[in-house]
Amino acid sequence: MATDTVTPSSAEDVPAEPGGTPQTDTDAQVESKSGYRQPQVDVPALTRLLDGKYAEVRNLVRTNLAEYSSILEDAETMSTDDFRERVKDVVVEMASTGQTGMGFPEEYGGGGDIGASIAAFETLAYGDLSVLVKVGVQFGLFGGAILQLGSKHHHDAYLEDLVTGKLMGCFAMTESGHGSNVQALGTVATYDVASQEFVVTTTHEAARKDYIGNAAKHARLAVVFAQLEVAGESHGVHAFVVPVRDEDGNVLDGVRIEDDGRKMGLNGVDNGRIWFDGVRIPRENLLNRFADVTPAGVYESDIENPNRRFFTMLGTLIQGRVCVGGAGINASKVALTLAVKYALRRRQFEATQEDTEELLLDYGMHQRRLLPLLARTYALHFAQEELASQLHDVLSGVVEDEHTQRELEARAAGTKALGTWHATRTIQECREACGGAGYLSVNRFAALKADTDVFTTFEGDNTVLLQLVAKGLLTDYASEFSDMDQLGMVRFVTGLAVETVIERTAVNKLLERIRDVLPGGDEWDQEAGLLDPDYQLAMFRFREEHVVSGVARRLKRGIDRGMNPGEVFSRVQDHVIAAGRAHVERLVLEAFTAKTAALPDGDQKVALNLLCDLYALSAIEADRAWFMEHGRLSVARSKAISREIGSLCRKIRPIADELVEAFAVPREMLRSPDLLEWPPA
Amino acid sequence: MATDTVTPSSAEDVPAEPGGTPQTDTDAQVESKSGYRQPQVDVPALTRLLDGKYAEVRNLVRTNLAEYSSILEDAETMSTDDFRERVKDVVVEMASTGQTGMGFPEEYGGGGDIGASIAAFETLAYGDLSVLVKVGVQFGLFGGAILQLGSKHHHDAYLEDLVTGKLMGCFAMTESGHGSNVQALGTVATYDVASQEFVVTTTHEAARKDYIGNAAKHARLAVVFAQLEVAGESHGVHAFVVPVRDEDGNVLDGVRIEDDGRKMGLNGVDNGRIWFDGVRIPRENLLNRFADVTPAGVYESDIENPNRRFFTMLGTLIQGRVCVGGAGINASKVALTLAVKYALRRRQFEATQEDTEELLLDYGMHQRRLLPLLARTYALHFAQEELASQLHDVLSGVVEDEHTQRELEARAAGTKALGTWHATRTIQECREACGGAGYLSVNRFAALKADTDVFTTFEGDNTVLLQLVAKGLLTDYASEFSDMDQLGMVRFVTGLAVETVIERTAVNKLLERIRDVLPGGDEWDQEAGLLDPDYQLAMFRFREEHVVSGVARRLKRGIDRGMNPGEVFSRVQDHVIAAGRAHVERLVLEAFTAKTAALPDGDQKVALNLLCDLYALSAIEADRAWFMEHGRLSVARSKAISREIGSLCRKIRPIADELVEAFAVPREMLRSPDLLEWPPA
Repeated sequence: MATDTVTPSSAEDVPAEPGGTPQTDTDAQVESKSGYRQPQVDVPALTRLLDGKYAEVRNLVRTNLAEYSSILEDAETMSTDDFRERVKDVVVEMASTGQTGMGFPEEYGGGGDIGASIAAFETLAYGDLSVLVKVGVQFGLFGGAILQLGSKHHHDAYLEDLVTGKLMGCFAMTESGHGSNVQALGTVATYDVASQEFVVTTTHEAARKDYIGNAAKHARLAVVFAQLEVAGESHGVHAFVVPVRDEDGNVLDGVRIEDDGRKMGLNGVDNGRIWFDGVRIPRENLLNRFADVTPAGVYESDIENPNRRFFTMLGTLIQGRVCVGGAGINASKVALTLAVKYALRRRQFEATQEDTEELLLDYGMHQRRLLPLLARTYALHFAQEELASQLHDVLSGVVEDEHTQRELEARAAGTKALGTWHATRTIQECREACGGAGYLSVNRFAALKADTDVFTTFEGDNTVLLQLVAKGLLTDYASEFSDMDQLGMVRFVTGLAVETVIERTAVNKLLERIRDVLPGGDEWDQEAGLLDPDYQLAMFRFREEHVVSGVARRLKRGIDRGMNPGEVFSRVQDHVIAAGRAHVERLVLEAFTAKTAALPDGDQKVALNLLCDLYALSAIEADRAWFMEHGRLSVARSKAISREIGSLCRKIRPIADELVEAFAVPREMLRSPDLLEWPPA
Repeated sequence: MATDTVTPSSAEDVPAEPGGTPQTDTDAQVESKSGYRQPQVDVPALTRLLDGKYAEVRNLVRTNLAEYSSILEDAETMSTDDFRERVKDVVVEMASTGQTGMGFPEEYGGGGDIGASIAAFETLAYGDLSVLVKVGVQFGLFGGAILQLGSKHHHDAYLEDLVTGKLMGCFAMTESGHGSNVQALGTVATYDVASQEFVVTTTHEAARKDYIGNAAKHARLAVVFAQLEVAGESHGVHAFVVPVRDEDGNVLDGVRIEDDGRKMGLNGVDNGRIWFDGVRIPRENLLNRFADVTPAGVYESDIENPNRRFFTMLGTLIQGRVCVGGAGINASKVALTLAVKYALRRRQFEATQEDTEELLLDYGMHQRRLLPLLARTYALHFAQEELASQLHDVLSGVVEDEHTQRELEARAAGTKALGTWHATRTIQECREACGGAGYLSVNRFAALKADTDVFTTFEGDNTVLLQLVAKGLLTDYASEFSDMDQLGMVRFVTGLAVETVIERTAVNKLLERIRDVLPGGDEWDQEAGLLDPDYQLAMFRFREEHVVSGVARRLKRGIDRGMNPGEVFSRVQDHVIAAGRAHVERLVLEAFTAKTAALPDGDQKVALNLLCDLYALSAIEADRAWFMEHGRLSVARSKAISREIGSLCRKIRPIADELVEAFAVPREMLRSPDLLEWPPA
């Protein structure tokens, strides 16, 4: 997928042009002096490390997946209708093992452990992704909304049947006209004080609910997000439980449902459109944890600011985002397992010897295509582990302060964006690396690619999510945060002196940490070793600090020149998004570095350090133009990084098989006879 | 698809950090001083320019496509078996209009115009791509092999029925074990002098023919590529006509065919595997244009060197590669038409005004995502037009010298790689830019993405193709060229003094041209305007020259150090591939620049210059790290380029609709009610 004209630094081990910058062989010398020894990888031990606290849960899911592995073929062979039923049946059967209900309270048949529920969900990404998404819709979105936005009477009414899959529901937030800007939804729920009911209405065609999983076929209930109107006053978006089908599956009066039809992938999930024509629901169907309407028609909420209330509600639902990010990362593992294993079996062209063709993975280009993606997958895995752990603490009430919650939301948004883009890119690169065989459905990439594609835009469009991250950074997750759209953010930032913005932002602390680590300041370029984690972290932190404060300055300058705030935002938008990305990349590197640093000395640590170095240096290399533009990378250093990446790839090459084996994707879920059983007998 | 951490230059119109490099506003000033006026685009006139010489042919195909547009739905709804039959029927019906036979001689019912046949094929990419690929298999690969490798008696025997689609065939070159390294095929055809027959045998399991279009169902004949053995001596790979089914469709004795089964896309094409177990065919079934075996068993060929003979044969088949590249470029046009038009209708978030949400295409990031891809599509279109025209001249015998032919082969290989990677990337970006609606099959991206995916690896794996381009550059298409695999190339290059290599290569001429244009040498950076085509071309030429000669030096240095040539190649491989890419990018820019330069002054020229500038500067920006590393781009200049790109995007924004409209994709082929008829009524 090397579509852009990006020319590599010409500084591999076979040196570059003599006329160019002189070669520094320092790193290579250090390498031999340090007595580098190829590590051996203990695969089960590495799997244990990856599986972490929830190894048992992950293994339960692996076992379940293997049991239902025929569903991978069913996805190809069954009609859409049949496959939807098959997926539903598998979901319900899995529910009976407890794996899908781990996040619900024990009194309703759940497992009472949010971390476990995330681990279980992520592991489902090794299997058919319609099952994963159907689980996400039923237990994450629908169940999560009832749990997080409802009160005890909602829990009592729905959770037990919901956890077993007996009661299927859907999460009706997105409308055709509004996906990212959810505050502007067009569905309205008007309180009728006479009957003590809400009347739910689709006010115009673009306000129909759209892409709603479970809607076309299986949902009996919908959690509907609508503008609440009481006595002629609008109180913003709230969530309501609206019955949409009776027990026999007939659509109820006033509700109209259409099938979204075939999709690029995930055809085991029944997505649909819903219109409401004056549908009446009891007052008690408002999910009233954060706001309520009294029988007499008085609106009540502990959170006064309506925007803040809305974002507080949304904030409780971030588990879905965390889960999708994790699913993207795990889908990448499936792709890499296939491509790496194939590259260790398939030969093409004679290269180093006559009469024996070379293994694909012994080609430098093939290593360059696959191994940095493998390293990044490990990095994202550990970042995701850290995120899931933080989410568990927040949702379990271990941590309650609002600032931490806002930071967590940003981290969830950013990790979802990076994890799902990584999946799209990795699956594509791995498919191409498997040639024609990668195109046959039996070899797994067809479903992986089609099913994961929507991950980058559902549960939050990735570009919008990175803007959200940047907004948090620029405002230091101020309480005004929840009250701000893009314009609000621009006005907020530009309303302060730039210095104040920078001082207030989290990134200010980064600079201090950079200084602590590298007091030499500008000389770090010469002094620190490329493989020094402090050097790598300092580079990531410098970038983040610099990009974030640069955005603040540019926004302010634009406003000072009298430009329209929206116009300023539009022009700075790619910079804003880059700020969000730089932040999340830094969190990823910190998580990976912390994980490896905590390991006891030994081969496992050596192996993970190779991956961590490869991740960090690949990321710096990809952005080397920026670092050069900002005086943080000399040409010689830039070339040295490219050389080091080549060297790291060659060191990882001998353990590549073990590194993908440790993901422990069940053999049944890989299929791929043409890749894994090569050559054919 | 912004997966990598590439941080933009922070130098948009809203200026960068005050602490950074001072802002040069030169370009902006020139812009206003020059009295820039927004061009109006005459859509029909621009379509005529794009359609060029073969407008009539393209319009015939457009009409045919519109007539069979229901096939786009059939692809979703029909069973695989039914859809294959449907596609075959459409192909045969289209054949009756003459559009698929334009490349064949008139005496056999063809059109006698190779350029027209390429234009017709490319235009098919606006429609269902199974039809396109089935046409490519039948008329391009199978028919092309009979035409180009066979003699008059083969033409007499097959062409007439082949052109009408009455006689279906397949092109059985690729084997499971060898796709890129075709010289190492495992199928053997042994001459039996007693019976005057060839005996065709699949010698081992990995030598089965694989992914062969038309094989699973429709082909009665196969053109089989096999090692020719005569009297115990091997003469390398030759092509043979082998009957595989009788007139009733029954597979013949000694032939075994298996279905490749479901694929990621293109499920209207019946790909399969073929095994031959001592299948006997008459001596006359050798396609003997370049070599023959006498009845008595004497091998005869005018081309002595067996490798050269093989590559001469292959060289006649490059039309397929040219066609696939063109198809990729045209598939990109479909995607861009949808994404740009949606972005001009769909609104999200308030930005510049209260109470009115902003059109997606008015966001800077959205412009940055789509418009450089649009510019690159135009660039590739004109490069493809130039390539097709050259191919027409070579295949029609207008040009005959071998050097030109080799250059053309390299150009075809490189344009195919760039065009198909561009398709993968553009379709993905456009899909994401359409959010959830982009995921529904009715909105076209599902098929576009799945069907085009294999373009990057069939008809030559893109990475291997770029190596081929580089090999030609390094050896100046020497006659030894055809005799060289990777190792041969390494040995050839390193057997000469580096200076000799550089002197001999085509790139040497580039340097002279750069000097002619910019006599100031190092000062070009300050002197030339960013929008000066000579500056842009000089940058592309400098890169090509420098990367190619750098590869030569690195290869030589590796060998001089006593490394194994294969090891040297492996380490330099990414650099080799970058050399191929730099070369093709330069050809693309030259083609686009020449096209615009030749236009009369006027709005059309202004509009195309905007696109050409955006293409050139985007390419330089994407590779700005390399240019900085090689002293050809200062930080200030790099930032100015980013600023200029933003400015070009804003100038193209008002004519974006016209620019995609000019592609003239028939409305029937776009489907996409959720995108094109937004908002819903």
